[in-house]
Amino acid sequence: MTVGSSPNSAPFPVPPMRWDAWGDPELAAPLSEGTSTLIRGMLGVTGETTLPTIDPATVIVPPSRLSGEDLAALRAIVGDDWVSTAAVDRLLRASGKSTPDLLRRRRPHQDAPDAVVIPASDDQVGQLLTWCTDHRVAVVPFGGGTSVVGGVDPVADGFGATVSVDLRRMDALLDLDEVSQVATLGAGVTGPDAERLLGERGYSLGHFPQSFRYATIGGFAVTRSSGQASAGYGRFDDMVQAITLVTPRGILQAGRSPKNAVGPDLRQLIMGSEGVFGVVTRVAVRVHRRPTATEYEGWRFDSFDAAAQAFRAVAQEGVMPTVMRVSDELETALNLARPTEIGESGDKAVPGGCLAITTFEGSPTAVAARAGVVRETFAAAGGQSLGPGPAQMWEHGRFSGPYLRDALLDIGVGCETLETATTWARLAEVKTAVTTALAAVLPEPTVVMCHLSHTYATGASLYFTVVYRQEGDALEQWLAAKHHVTTTLTEVGASITHHHAVGRDHRPWMSAEIGDLGVAVLSAVKAVLDPAGVCNPGKLI
Amino acid sequence: MTVGSSPNSAPFPVPPMRWDAWGDPELAAPLSEGTSTLIRGMLGVTGETTLPTIDPATVIVPPSRLSGEDLAALRAIVGDDWVSTAAVDRLLRASGKSTPDLLRRRRPHQDAPDAVVIPASDDQVGQLLTWCTDHRVAVVPFGGGTSVVGGVDPVADGFGATVSVDLRRMDALLDLDEVSQVATLGAGVTGPDAERLLGERGYSLGHFPQSFRYATIGGFAVTRSSGQASAGYGRFDDMVQAITLVTPRGILQAGRSPKNAVGPDLRQLIMGSEGVFGVVTRVAVRVHRRPTATEYEGWRFDSFDAAAQAFRAVAQEGVMPTVMRVSDELETALNLARPTEIGESGDKAVPGGCLAITTFEGSPTAVAARAGVVRETFAAAGGQSLGPGPAQMWEHGRFSGPYLRDALLDIGVGCETLETATTWARLAEVKTAVTTALAAVLPEPTVVMCHLSHTYATGASLYFTVVYRQEGDALEQWLAAKHHVTTTLTEVGASITHHHAVGRDHRPWMSAEIGDLGVAVLSAVKAVLDPAGVCNPGKLI
Repeated sequence: MTVGSSPNSAPFPVPPMRWDAWGDPELAAPLSEGTSTLIRGMLGVTGETTLPTIDPATVIVPPSRLSGEDLAALRAIVGDDWVSTAAVDRLLRASGKSTPDLLRRRRPHQDAPDAVVIPASDDQVGQLLTWCTDHRVAVVPFGGGTSVVGGVDPVADGFGATVSVDLRRMDALLDLDEVSQVATLGAGVTGPDAERLLGERGYSLGHFPQSFRYATIGGFAVTRSSGQASAGYGRFDDMVQAITLVTPRGILQAGRSPKNAVGPDLRQLIMGSEGVFGVVTRVAVRVHRRPTATEYEGWRFDSFDAAAQAFRAVAQEGVMPTVMRVSDELETALNLARPTEIGESGDKAVPGGCLAITTFEGSPTAVAARAGVVRETFAAAGGQSLGPGPAQMWEHGRFSGPYLRDALLDIGVGCETLETATTWARLAEVKTAVTTALAAVLPEPTVVMCHLSHTYATGASLYFTVVYRQEGDALEQWLAAKHHVTTTLTEVGASITHHHAVGRDHRPWMSAEIGDLGVAVLSAVKAVLDPAGVCNPGKLI
Repeated sequence: MTVGSSPNSAPFPVPPMRWDAWGDPELAAPLSEGTSTLIRGMLGVTGETTLPTIDPATVIVPPSRLSGEDLAALRAIVGDDWVSTAAVDRLLRASGKSTPDLLRRRRPHQDAPDAVVIPASDDQVGQLLTWCTDHRVAVVPFGGGTSVVGGVDPVADGFGATVSVDLRRMDALLDLDEVSQVATLGAGVTGPDAERLLGERGYSLGHFPQSFRYATIGGFAVTRSSGQASAGYGRFDDMVQAITLVTPRGILQAGRSPKNAVGPDLRQLIMGSEGVFGVVTRVAVRVHRRPTATEYEGWRFDSFDAAAQAFRAVAQEGVMPTVMRVSDELETALNLARPTEIGESGDKAVPGGCLAITTFEGSPTAVAARAGVVRETFAAAGGQSLGPGPAQMWEHGRFSGPYLRDALLDIGVGCETLETATTWARLAEVKTAVTTALAAVLPEPTVVMCHLSHTYATGASLYFTVVYRQEGDALEQWLAAKHHVTTTLTEVGASITHHHAVGRDHRPWMSAEIGDLGVAVLSAVKAVLDPAGVCNPGKLI
């Protein structure tokens, strides 16, 4: 590994996940020769695969643009051990985990922040922001590094350097109010650590996005994360009671009571701010006692439309499961045919149609009552119960999806996800429009699967997985498809993202989504909190 | 009535409620001689009562500061029939309905907006804002005029005049998406009209604040209204899917999907903005099919603390009634002893303790399931079921409370309400602090009653009614008490308002609630949307 200026030679302990792929190398799941041949054959991939992974020894990272004096100043703020310009540390915070990110990681020249700085307190974050403002250095807040929209890209945007501010030292359960069931967590607490810290006291947060194993509390807040149990426990923005934002202008502390009428809700302005207003350091969230009862039930519906109508009926009735999701016909078929899962598809077969799963958590009484209402609604809507198996199996494998993408890239197959939200009335139209848009740009046969995993009374999210044959410049190929499909979303009136956030990748469509005046409002807020514009430039607005 | 310049002599059709008291004169409920004597005796009111109501013929309203040319310009925008400087029209929009408002209405000199203008479209509102910006005239948006925080006071704040912009012509159900269950309503639609328009199609909004009979959709949104059925249907800010704000800089349209991750939620910035960013003209809200089943059940708890613990258990379990409220010991005793209701207190007596009521609306299956879970939780927490009577009686009289206040003022007795929200852990402390603060400032014996009517998993609102002997300058007497109790709220960490909003009256405590930086953020938003500052000056920030 070619290192620029590198005063620290050792990487920090407990590094984030792999720099060029998802997650834990131990859990990587390369495809068998047979499966690989099958998939390549189906998609028409021929000859040598594009995009080999890169030997870390050949990576070229530009030297840090920060001077020795700069680094001494940063060390004076956070402590000598918590500033690094080692290439390995910088690379580990150089991007998120979108497919474009993974494709870029396979190139010899890598962009990276000029230093990684790890503060331990609001005060240190404040001092960092002041120093960066005074020295015109851009600040990129870093949590788990799981962004799939370029949210942690080291964009200098006219500033002299970029500093990745990793929140991992702010990793404590700071307070647990067991009466109000509110936990205050440091922004750097990861999903598993939140569950561990709360679990020791008998509580759970219940926020399980696909990024759960790496992503952090601060990241959940600034990206409006939505977890797999959103039907029961709400989106992360529903859970947040109070939030602390350290800005170059001082600390903005929002949320003095669960709900109130004291003007606009500033929590909802900080959430979704993606680091452009400052650094979220602490979040007070609603938690719940660990459930004493859990029920699982899978359902078969004849079609995605029939399932969506059943989900709509449940959401509009207002008695919800904890988890409720349904795959469309294609995703149902392909999931059941997954190489590792054939023959394990639960206790009943799903002959065609769509597989839905529900989970109910709570007290025995509440679980029974809720499950009873949902069961009646699903049955009335044509659903056939499949017993607990499919839901249990889904829960077992629910965080492993991203590893498959790396394995596919290794055999020249592109794979990416994208998502949107819309009203029930527009759901079918939006699903068709996205599928058509992807098929129009990507080579035949492109596989577009979809599931509905976040359900509201008035609408739902749609989550798409696209698998296709890579051709030509694989990065350009996907970016063209992404551009086309995002423009299509704005044209059909759906949102450009339901829970992936905006970052760098969706930013060009912000005016289409919230209007020029909406962008002007967010820019005005940024101007008052971050007058020099050093906070995560090039993102969101 | 002494009229200044009055080119229009006739008032508009369908005037707002009385200029100097709550509601419909036909529904006024003066106290009987016996009840009056009893209450005066209990509170120690002696001699002549202060504050006689005023003969409208003697009211002195300053002449309109708008010239004939100004008025011609306004008429050119909204049409000849929709601009008035008649004193009667101006007085009807001169204030809200707080006790200070009612006390001020008993004085011979009245402040009032310089004209009332009634636009019919976004375009007309936009033209009005442009004209007012160009001519330095303040704009006060007006819905039902039910503010109890000075939200519609005609504050000129350095501008040459004030114009009340009454939204009543924007009174249509613009769209009903029956699949998504989203209704788009004009900002001027009143609570009853919303229910009527939706009811004709089989739907209901389910938003029933005490101001329901007069207040409007736009007002609900900009004040973050919370209705009596908030447990089941949510606060108004939970219901809003999309909102249209006309500003001097153009139209800000927020909300393209039920929920998303497209940056900060601008809906939540517009809601609670109280007219200072512009005029909300249209709101898309979640509605629901009219319920096919309703269950009522009253409960007795030994104490308010015991009831609060039961409410907390229900909210944290997550299966909620549609309406859930409980009066403290004093409010329970006094409500049951109301002059008009003695002997009608439901099918079972409540010997001491606290009366709670629950209502469940929905499908028969969902109602039965929800009621079953709540019943079990209440019983486990020591509640005793009282059958349906108390809840039915509450529903019957639920909008009549404000009339009693006028009757009390007529006999020299002060009466006002105030409210807050806090976490469960702080609930008892906050209740005591408010009660103590009021008793410390108002004359003995002051009656402070409380109920809990909006319940969240992490906390609740507390709603206080205070009844006291008026002494000295009745307005100054109450303002001193209000100042003391609001300061107390900020000191104990509770919010300065749960659903009454900020307006003019709570504005001095905004920095205590959201910090100077929070105020700076809101000011920056105002500066970009309303550069001249003409929108509802003197309110919120």
